Amino acid sequence: MDGRARNCRTVTFDAGRNAVQLIDQRQLPHRFQVAAAADFQATARAIAQMTVRGAGAIGAAAAYGMAQGARAFRGTDPAKFSARLHLVYQTLQSARPTAVDPVNAMNAVLRAVRAGTTVAEQQALALAAAEEFANDDVLHCAAIGRHGEKLIRPGANILTHCNAGWLAFVDIGSATAPLYAAQKAGRKFHVYCDETRPRCQGATLTAWELAGQNISHQIISDSAAGHLMQRGEIDLVIVGSDRTLGRTGEAANKIGTYTLAVLARRHRIPFYVAIPLSTLDWNLRSGRAIPIEERPEAEVLCAWGTAPGRSGPACVRIANPSSGARNPGFDVTPPELITGFITPEGISQPRALWKNRRRLGHPG
Amino acid sequence: MDGRARNCRTVTFDAGRNAVQLIDQRQLPHRFQVAAAADFQATARAIAQMTVRGAGAIGAAAAYGMAQGARAFRGTDPAKFSARLHLVYQTLQSARPTAVDPVNAMNAVLRAVRAGTTVAEQQALALAAAEEFANDDVLHCAAIGRHGEKLIRPGANILTHCNAGWLAFVDIGSATAPLYAAQKAGRKFHVYCDETRPRCQGATLTAWELAGQNISHQIISDSAAGHLMQRGEIDLVIVGSDRTLGRTGEAANKIGTYTLAVLARRHRIPFYVAIPLSTLDWNLRSGRAIPIEERPEAEVLCAWGTAPGRSGPACVRIANPSSGARNPGFDVTPPELITGFITPEGISQPRALWKNRRRLGHPG
Repeated sequence: MDGRARNCRTVTFDAGRNAVQLIDQRQLPHRFQVAAAADFQATARAIAQMTVRGAGAIGAAAAYGMAQGARAFRGTDPAKFSARLHLVYQTLQSARPTAVDPVNAMNAVLRAVRAGTTVAEQQALALAAAEEFANDDVLHCAAIGRHGEKLIRPGANILTHCNAGWLAFVDIGSATAPLYAAQKAGRKFHVYCDETRPRCQGATLTAWELAGQNISHQIISDSAAGHLMQRGEIDLVIVGSDRTLGRTGEAANKIGTYTLAVLARRHRIPFYVAIPLSTLDWNLRSGRAIPIEERPEAEVLCAWGTAPGRSGPACVRIANPSSGARNPGFDVTPPELITGFITPEGISQPRALWKNRRRLGHPG
Repeated sequence: MDGRARNCRTVTFDAGRNAVQLIDQRQLPHRFQVAAAADFQATARAIAQMTVRGAGAIGAAAAYGMAQGARAFRGTDPAKFSARLHLVYQTLQSARPTAVDPVNAMNAVLRAVRAGTTVAEQQALALAAAEEFANDDVLHCAAIGRHGEKLIRPGANILTHCNAGWLAFVDIGSATAPLYAAQKAGRKFHVYCDETRPRCQGATLTAWELAGQNISHQIISDSAAGHLMQRGEIDLVIVGSDRTLGRTGEAANKIGTYTLAVLARRHRIPFYVAIPLSTLDWNLRSGRAIPIEERPEAEVLCAWGTAPGRSGPACVRIANPSSGARNPGFDVTPPELITGFITPEGISQPRALWKNRRRLGHPG
């Protein structure tokens, strides 16, 4: 990837224009382009339509979206301002209901706002809290890298799913952070990227990231992971999470993650989930309570790519025209299939998250 | 589908032109088109490039390809004729090395040829044996339907993978035969079609078949099966096989089948493999000995579909341009994960195939 891509954060805020700026991930790997969301509704649309995607990245986008909505408020009535914030919160949250990073990010903004007395003060505090969320995300991912890189032995074959790379966060990434740290430490290894249908974030985003970092990798169909495990060609699985339940150790992540965990258990392959603290949900008591987003059928019925002789990426209909689809976006992996969580505070057994909740940012 | 499609066999032989005629499966569901392979090399190419695909269909194509190669021989020397047949056999077999139907079909042709004394006699016997293979395939699939339909309870949700439908055989299909029989018996049920990356035979071929038969169905990403099983939304899995070992009960089938079997076992969902007798390999003693075809990277890096404003199907590059892929075409499911084989002779436990070998067509 070009230096411009690697050196910029995925989500930033333009205070002068009160706009959220996002790397347009739908254009990658075909085109590197930064999009601006001019108001909080546009930010919510960018999240729902996956212009920006990934746990930490949509967390930061939601935090900045809250600041954006707060700063667009004209008036001095704190009650009306509070009602506006409530509307902004609801709009942004409903954009991707399975993820918890936006909720945690927006709650942090709301907590910060309470310290202000005037609307102007509260507006300033909202933006400061959003910036803090983004900065923390970068620090958390770097810490995940330090703890996780020890898992990567020289010559290891590592499987990952979807994109939990720097594109999915503000920088560095969760599941990829140990890879980048191990590479810095001089270790050689090979990564298999699940292509991750239907949106192919593995084939597009993770592969693009790894190619840019000169990390040895190959893309596989999601269905091929079991065969490679059977043949002894996978030593370690590292994935991200969109919501991890601190009470139970269950992890919601991109559809297909549960399947990899079941396969890894059968083959006694370590299965790790990398999470910054903002991915922890301390409230829900069961994975069955996590809302699983049902996404548009068209994502399954079509594919998105570049055709010879055409400039931009185009959508082609793969499937039989008279057939429909089911498209659950996420699944939930139970704790007994997870070897450990790689957190900024170290590696934790799934059942130990609750015991370590103070260190792991439990707000209570 | 139109009547023309449903009422024709997937593979037939035009004796006048000495050509193998094939439904061009690469064009479906976008276009229904019959292709003619003018010589045995063209038939081998049609198999390798998947103009024709599916266990029984490539078995019939290989049998007709043998007859075609035999009939193109000019001369009367039986030794030279035999050498020619050997070349034809090797060429056709190497087109899809994992499948055993072509081997069994071509062996049947070779056995039949031995009864002739002159080259002309042997040429006629080769074609008769190929026709017999194709006719047997139709009868076997019908019998699979009769035995398998009892597994389908009213209201059942059935998962299938790839296409083991009538397109994959000469007619009726293996994994789909029980569906068509249950429908004829007046039962209602729902089918989830795994899209089956990289070539999407589920989204294209199986969905097209089921839509044409008015069978309720939806396409899912291959990664979604685990989640649906977790939520109790799958009652039964039926798949086909490209090579089943009669000695061990191991089944090679389209990449991803093993994963479904592992998931089904975890969720105690019955997992059946439907096979005509020509899919049984009585020689190999271990699934590790089954050659697993490594197919072109481009299948994983691209997708094939129709774009708006374009007439025919086009290939688009999905993946990062600077990344490569691994593309194993098949995997092997061990007997302990298979509830039963649906054969033309009834349902058999994996370990009972060998015991029942006489009934199941063991040649010895």
